[in-house]
Amino acid sequence: MTKGQLLYEGKAKKLYTTEEPNVLLVEYKDSATAFNGEKKEEIEGKGILNNRITSLIFEKLQAYGIASHFVKQLSDTQQLVKQVDIIPIEVVVRNIAAGSLAKRLGFEEGTPLRRPIVEFYYKDDELGDPLISTEHIDVLDLATPEEVTAIYDGALAVNKVLQPIFADVNVTLIDFKLEFGRDHDGNVLLADEISPDTCRLWDATTKQKLDKDVFRRDLGNLTEVYTIILSRLGGK
Amino acid sequence: MTKGQLLYEGKAKKLYTTEEPNVLLVEYKDSATAFNGEKKEEIEGKGILNNRITSLIFEKLQAYGIASHFVKQLSDTQQLVKQVDIIPIEVVVRNIAAGSLAKRLGFEEGTPLRRPIVEFYYKDDELGDPLISTEHIDVLDLATPEEVTAIYDGALAVNKVLQPIFADVNVTLIDFKLEFGRDHDGNVLLADEISPDTCRLWDATTKQKLDKDVFRRDLGNLTEVYTIILSRLGGK
Repeated sequence: MTKGQLLYEGKAKKLYTTEEPNVLLVEYKDSATAFNGEKKEEIEGKGILNNRITSLIFEKLQAYGIASHFVKQLSDTQQLVKQVDIIPIEVVVRNIAAGSLAKRLGFEEGTPLRRPIVEFYYKDDELGDPLISTEHIDVLDLATPEEVTAIYDGALAVNKVLQPIFADVNVTLIDFKLEFGRDHDGNVLLADEISPDTCRLWDATTKQKLDKDVFRRDLGNLTEVYTIILSRLGGK
Repeated sequence: MTKGQLLYEGKAKKLYTTEEPNVLLVEYKDSATAFNGEKKEEIEGKGILNNRITSLIFEKLQAYGIASHFVKQLSDTQQLVKQVDIIPIEVVVRNIAAGSLAKRLGFEEGTPLRRPIVEFYYKDDELGDPLISTEHIDVLDLATPEEVTAIYDGALAVNKVLQPIFADVNVTLIDFKLEFGRDHDGNVLLADEISPDTCRLWDATTKQKLDKDVFRRDLGNLTEVYTIILSRLGGK
């Protein structure tokens, strides 16, 4: 499988066509960005780490019956995925209050929520990805009610699989962001990536942050903590 | 019925006990405030106008079977209400995009929504009244799921009654804010006020703003436009 035409370049990944219709090649970049692109740095090795971690996690999810766009890891920085139209909703699942939730609603960071919650954000850089409700999704015509149900249920299903996988290796899954897309047949599929770029992951004992907050808040070496996550998940 | 002890003073109203248990006296003040209290002015006659308009609207709602805290208008600036514990959720119903919705989600002000939507905001001045979902309400323990359903259904019911009442007098009900409370027996009751302070009301023909946006955005004389609303509703 070889790289065709560049279809899209995002903050952390590039998407290329391949010789197979409806299959794309994703290339993970070394760029780290935060605060809607305001903070930006090249970090050697980040692309390899996120490609490996995401591939590992999507393989685990598929083993638990959760369908996604993921086909297979192709090389250190590349993977193959089914082509989907990304639904412009960032789906955040939260188990423990942190980040914007803690700030907006006055929770102390680290407070366990009485139940996992699912939040929706309108994926729009110009508007700053505002929080939206299912009714906003409807009036903005971002997804049908059936798709919203599939996304909501899918997000909680991913949480149910990932929480114990991380807990088993002494990592607490604080929160994470998912994206979904529509495949060629209109099915809603889990897409994008699941990595320390898109999850908050704390060492369960020391509470050390093992995710992009290390970069956002200048707390240490990003590749060091991403490597911890990769190796705890059994990868190398 | 006479004024007892001052129980609470808000931005626009004072609450007093009366000689009857569970019945309070509300006194409407002449204060106009906006932007979480940052803009503030005394406007003579505003209290009378809002007391009259709110009384009129709550009477109409009761005639349509919508229960509320409202007992009766007592004087120019005073009304009697059942005592309730206010649930700290601001409930906004929107028919047409305006204000924060237009700004946050990129709608042009005046765009009709394909259906009325109900939004919830966490009533907390320090946090700036953030938008919340039903799941945030749950983890913040602000109301039970049954109460949220009662609030949601109640808000849409108020919209169904008020939209035609305003349309009949050539006023478009763009959006409005409601508050609900729990009475002595734990029932959820519509409370607070419904006035040009808490609604966006546009002349259906000229689109002239007949509400607090006149004060917020320095568009003219507040008492003049509030008087138009009162007289169109059949009051004086």
